[in-house]
Amino acid sequence: MIRLDSTDAGFTQAFTALVNARREADDDVARNVTHIIKRVRDEGDVALRDLTRLFDKHDLDRSGWTIDRADCLAAYEGLTPELRAALELAAERIAVYHAKQRPEDRDDTDAQGIRLGARWTPVDAAGVYVPGGRAAYPSSVLMNAIPAKAAGVRRLVMVTPTPNGEVNPLVLAAAHVAGVDELYRVGGAQAVAALAYGTDTIAPVDVVTGPGNAWVAEAKRQLYGVVGIDMVAGPSEIVVVADGKNDPEWIAADLLSQAEHDPTSQSILFTDDAAFADKVAAAVDAQIATLSTGATARTSWDANGAIILVPDLPTAMPLVDRLAPEHLELACDDAEPLFDMVRHAGSVFLGRYTPEAVGDYVAGPNHVLPTGRRARFASGLSVLDFMKRTSFLSLDPSGLAAIGPAAVALAEAEGLPAHAKSVAIRLK
Amino acid sequence: MIRLDSTDAGFTQAFTALVNARREADDDVARNVTHIIKRVRDEGDVALRDLTRLFDKHDLDRSGWTIDRADCLAAYEGLTPELRAALELAAERIAVYHAKQRPEDRDDTDAQGIRLGARWTPVDAAGVYVPGGRAAYPSSVLMNAIPAKAAGVRRLVMVTPTPNGEVNPLVLAAAHVAGVDELYRVGGAQAVAALAYGTDTIAPVDVVTGPGNAWVAEAKRQLYGVVGIDMVAGPSEIVVVADGKNDPEWIAADLLSQAEHDPTSQSILFTDDAAFADKVAAAVDAQIATLSTGATARTSWDANGAIILVPDLPTAMPLVDRLAPEHLELACDDAEPLFDMVRHAGSVFLGRYTPEAVGDYVAGPNHVLPTGRRARFASGLSVLDFMKRTSFLSLDPSGLAAIGPAAVALAEAEGLPAHAKSVAIRLK
Repeated sequence: MIRLDSTDAGFTQAFTALVNARREADDDVARNVTHIIKRVRDEGDVALRDLTRLFDKHDLDRSGWTIDRADCLAAYEGLTPELRAALELAAERIAVYHAKQRPEDRDDTDAQGIRLGARWTPVDAAGVYVPGGRAAYPSSVLMNAIPAKAAGVRRLVMVTPTPNGEVNPLVLAAAHVAGVDELYRVGGAQAVAALAYGTDTIAPVDVVTGPGNAWVAEAKRQLYGVVGIDMVAGPSEIVVVADGKNDPEWIAADLLSQAEHDPTSQSILFTDDAAFADKVAAAVDAQIATLSTGATARTSWDANGAIILVPDLPTAMPLVDRLAPEHLELACDDAEPLFDMVRHAGSVFLGRYTPEAVGDYVAGPNHVLPTGRRARFASGLSVLDFMKRTSFLSLDPSGLAAIGPAAVALAEAEGLPAHAKSVAIRLK
Repeated sequence: MIRLDSTDAGFTQAFTALVNARREADDDVARNVTHIIKRVRDEGDVALRDLTRLFDKHDLDRSGWTIDRADCLAAYEGLTPELRAALELAAERIAVYHAKQRPEDRDDTDAQGIRLGARWTPVDAAGVYVPGGRAAYPSSVLMNAIPAKAAGVRRLVMVTPTPNGEVNPLVLAAAHVAGVDELYRVGGAQAVAALAYGTDTIAPVDVVTGPGNAWVAEAKRQLYGVVGIDMVAGPSEIVVVADGKNDPEWIAADLLSQAEHDPTSQSILFTDDAAFADKVAAAVDAQIATLSTGATARTSWDANGAIILVPDLPTAMPLVDRLAPEHLELACDDAEPLFDMVRHAGSVFLGRYTPEAVGDYVAGPNHVLPTGRRARFASGLSVLDFMKRTSFLSLDPSGLAAIGPAAVALAEAEGLPAHAKSVAIRLK
């Protein structure tokens, strides 16, 4: 963890280094992923079986390529009533929030009698990647699958690695709740490649979403254009802007809720109260000692954590914009003026009673959010990621007479005579 | 050009081959682009100057790195009144169409008193790539720059190669009309890399859009994630669905309006009238002979063109969906029932008086559209490509009491105790 003070002489340089610090995949991952994608494209199921044996230590021909929907139902019924209710509450709230994202079609006729518009349609098939092993998150299943269903996607495929053949019952239960149509026991870059190109067993999909390790993220990046993808995902981040009236234990817990994800996660506190900063730092250390995820949180906080002192909270906001964080908490009495200053953030959590983690699970907005400063140009997952827009145009002879000559002039100026002719021939 | 009949025995196989035919970049382009990107990232302006000398045959230090806005105004004033009016008409109609794409913010409070919503904001800076040389298209300037301006982008940068140092006055005039803020005389993969990473001369942008050759497209693909991009663009395509009551000369001109773009372009006609098909084929041959772009059109039509006979036009529509074409003309009296069958197309042109080329220039919808079957999952360029959404959430103690326990249960089930603690600590 580094401590910075925005009024110090060296602050600008130190903060710029923090903004530019890369915590992402290296070239070796890229080369290995290229090789895996090529193998899956060329060899299909044979490559999937080989790579699953290599990375996940089981033989798909023995353990089974698919997971039955009946198994998902059984997993759901095997949960405690409390967990079933929690999953159902989360699914319901996520569905309500995302249903409101469905865009409206347009169909206008202008003063020249020219009809213009746009129609939105869902993709035919979507694939959701769900990590296996340590990072097996049923919440990710809901956050990826429910927007696809809300978009109207007919075929929803889930892939998830099952290391040593073991499945995660919570993930299966979430797949049941979300209404996933097909499940395959494959993971890694090879699973993304299979979804993109298709194999004999797995029919191709149009969009692949969902979190994963560096290999999965790199595979999505490389396959972008062959399929649609949500966004290249990097390590998780939180920025907390908090005044001294917060309980330091609460803010420490918020910082640790990202730090516990991964050693490469990042948690940053901006505060205008030096004594509060000290208390939070102490509370972080004390809480880490009690966490089962303490080792990960320790590494993340030591390597990537930061506490930054500012003269007042508004001073923090342009600095927050430079970080363009995935998650931003504004923990103060009236968060609205600070929120109005935000230009770049994936998701914002307002006030003292809105810990980021409540948004990870049950609030409704998506928890798949742009990382690594990508909130400068990217948005969280939404129904739009599973839909596309077809523009349309309809002219009659008088509409074409009104605007066609300008098209002819421009086409001729661009040296495209067939373009010009296709309009001019109708103007005779 | 191939002729197919959907009722022939071998049709399914032949059509599948047509759908799967790749007309895109190879691995050599990818490797060269990786090298160029690395050079620009590491060496900045030095690499830009070297690569421009190599590819565009001029020295930026002598010819000048930038193009002044005064030069753009002068180019505009140097146009014929007819061309100035055509550019203005196009810009006005494109601005009106795209302004209506601006999404609305959401700010709702639900039955639990939980406030949820989303705010849209423009990216800070956008870069528009404009090809130079043969394919120097002022219409591309308008189609990329105007949506960025409609989104509210403050800094709009244009890059365009100027082979041998020569600028294209039409492109400059279009930059003036569109209100481009900065122009640089660089092109190719090196220009895209400069926009993404920034150099001493060119400050980085957040989104890069615009068409280009295979190198430009590959650079955008590789830099996706470092910046936002519109969509990987491949060769242009048109599918025309036409009955026998069309003038074969009109339909031939429409097919050639794509074929003249590039040898890799593709034009496909579906018709239910074999005699009409013959007439269109003959008209294509006759028109090619009259075109200054005839050699390109000839190559494209011979290599990639197709005429496909169907028993009736509705039979064509599922086949069109498999092609997911960039442009789709429905040339018949009542196009609406056919349009209602379309699931995957970039843009649709309805009726006999709506040639695709009118949409390329002046109608209003964007001409930057998904190619290579990407209309299955991608949309044409819009203001959304220059904006991003920040979700937000605000809970009070009673809202957190209502949904917090479910978040705690899920976080504990996922093995993330700090997530659970950050909620539970506020419920005490």
